[in-house]
Amino acid sequence: MTAVDPRVSINQGTVKYADLAEALRATAAAGVQAIGLWREPVQEVGLATAAAMLADSGLRFSTHCRSGFFTMPEGPARRASIDDNRVAIDEAATLAAAGAPGSQPVLVLVAGGLPDGSRDVIGARERVRDAIGELAPDAAAAGVQLAIEPLHPMYASDRCVVSTLGQALDIAADFDPAVVGVTVDTFHIWWDPDVIGAIERAGREGRIATYQVCDWKTPLPADVLLSRHYPGDGVIDFGPMTRAVVESGYDRDIEVEIFNADIWAKDTGTIVRETAESFAAAVSPHLDPVRA
Amino acid sequence: MTAVDPRVSINQGTVKYADLAEALRATAAAGVQAIGLWREPVQEVGLATAAAMLADSGLRFSTHCRSGFFTMPEGPARRASIDDNRVAIDEAATLAAAGAPGSQPVLVLVAGGLPDGSRDVIGARERVRDAIGELAPDAAAAGVQLAIEPLHPMYASDRCVVSTLGQALDIAADFDPAVVGVTVDTFHIWWDPDVIGAIERAGREGRIATYQVCDWKTPLPADVLLSRHYPGDGVIDFGPMTRAVVESGYDRDIEVEIFNADIWAKDTGTIVRETAESFAAAVSPHLDPVRA
Repeated sequence: MTAVDPRVSINQGTVKYADLAEALRATAAAGVQAIGLWREPVQEVGLATAAAMLADSGLRFSTHCRSGFFTMPEGPARRASIDDNRVAIDEAATLAAAGAPGSQPVLVLVAGGLPDGSRDVIGARERVRDAIGELAPDAAAAGVQLAIEPLHPMYASDRCVVSTLGQALDIAADFDPAVVGVTVDTFHIWWDPDVIGAIERAGREGRIATYQVCDWKTPLPADVLLSRHYPGDGVIDFGPMTRAVVESGYDRDIEVEIFNADIWAKDTGTIVRETAESFAAAVSPHLDPVRA
Repeated sequence: MTAVDPRVSINQGTVKYADLAEALRATAAAGVQAIGLWREPVQEVGLATAAAMLADSGLRFSTHCRSGFFTMPEGPARRASIDDNRVAIDEAATLAAAGAPGSQPVLVLVAGGLPDGSRDVIGARERVRDAIGELAPDAAAAGVQLAIEPLHPMYASDRCVVSTLGQALDIAADFDPAVVGVTVDTFHIWWDPDVIGAIERAGREGRIATYQVCDWKTPLPADVLLSRHYPGDGVIDFGPMTRAVVESGYDRDIEVEIFNADIWAKDTGTIVRETAESFAAAVSPHLDPVRA
């Protein structure tokens, strides 16, 4: 049995069918020290209860997933989204305060795709910047760092018009790094010819809010949202990206976030154990320059 | 009935189930003036026969599709690939000479994915550059322009490690633009935040060997290779990219290349007519700055 890396964190999306209690229990039972939570299971029990459960678990809180989805033009739907993002900021602050020392008040933002019937990707991207401008003061007041997540370009039209780490950094550039950072997720950016340069830039600019790992493998499943794999099960070389993140000074927890129907079908304890083992094998060797 | 744009070209991949004779006949019958051919149906009848058939059709030849697939390490498989690419260069030269005046000796190159069992995308990309270095003298001698095609990043691991137009231009930069250019295909690059800048750069550097159009729509089909649509049926705004191509001075034919099981199931004449109509509606208005 491999030792559990002290920095691995289970993103709750990896154990999709576990409720909050089960996710916390299985994560702690496996010897994993941190967890990233999703809004829906938190809201299912209510924020105050979720915070108390997290505190009881003894786990660190690594990120809150996820908010954003603000590419629509001005109007009631946009106002509802901005308001909901403010709720998410409060959730992230409350949960980070309830987690064990070392918890991070990070809120992951997925921009959203093209509004229905629109072909204006440039306009959609401008509205992402506008939304972050609206939310930044709230995040700053709550002590929360927003983490703009570039998603793989195959999701550009229907899920996230932010497609590269460089583009996320360009959006973040208008804001204080303590308030607006980026999500570095290997699955979404491994293919980018400029990925190492972009990670180094993110490090220089103090913007790596969270580092997330999972693997890419083809053929893609029919639902391309579910094409994420355990580290080591696909074609991503975790060495260069992980070393670039480490050398940037990033010292937070590292989440494994997997959407995969075959993995979700397993029992929660098995998923957590396999996640920790795959991380130890494929990612841990690159965390310590001496070990690598 | 819309007039057929004089610059639209039917890529033979759009009429996958037509043999060469039928593809030529249906394209000319619809009033389309140009065609891009695929190697397999050309080889089915033999190059000399194919060239004679093309000459008889009176059509211009816009590109030869496709060669490449040279990411593997040195060894017999790599030698076989390089040799086969030399055959493809000769095919492109012969076909362009047989086509009507205005034909273009352009050979589209798809790099290939990661070799089996490899996670070394950086090495694979270096081998693409090496292969083009080997082939460039043959292309120059044959008067053929190689057209490096960046494919959408969802194909980066299994089909093409060249994922952005900027990356293709970086590879091409070592070579004479008359010998090594790039393929600008809306489907593959529309999502790129730098797409317009990259097209402008391609124009400045004289590298736009071929401009190809089709549309992007979600959900993606189970086989993501078959997710290409008629211009206008998806979310791509053809205005900005097409105007950037036109303003670069590109004056060649513009291919519509679609892989789509529902479209392939139609009869060849219908596909050609619908392709020409969709081009006239979605692309032609952006070709003439006065009309746009």
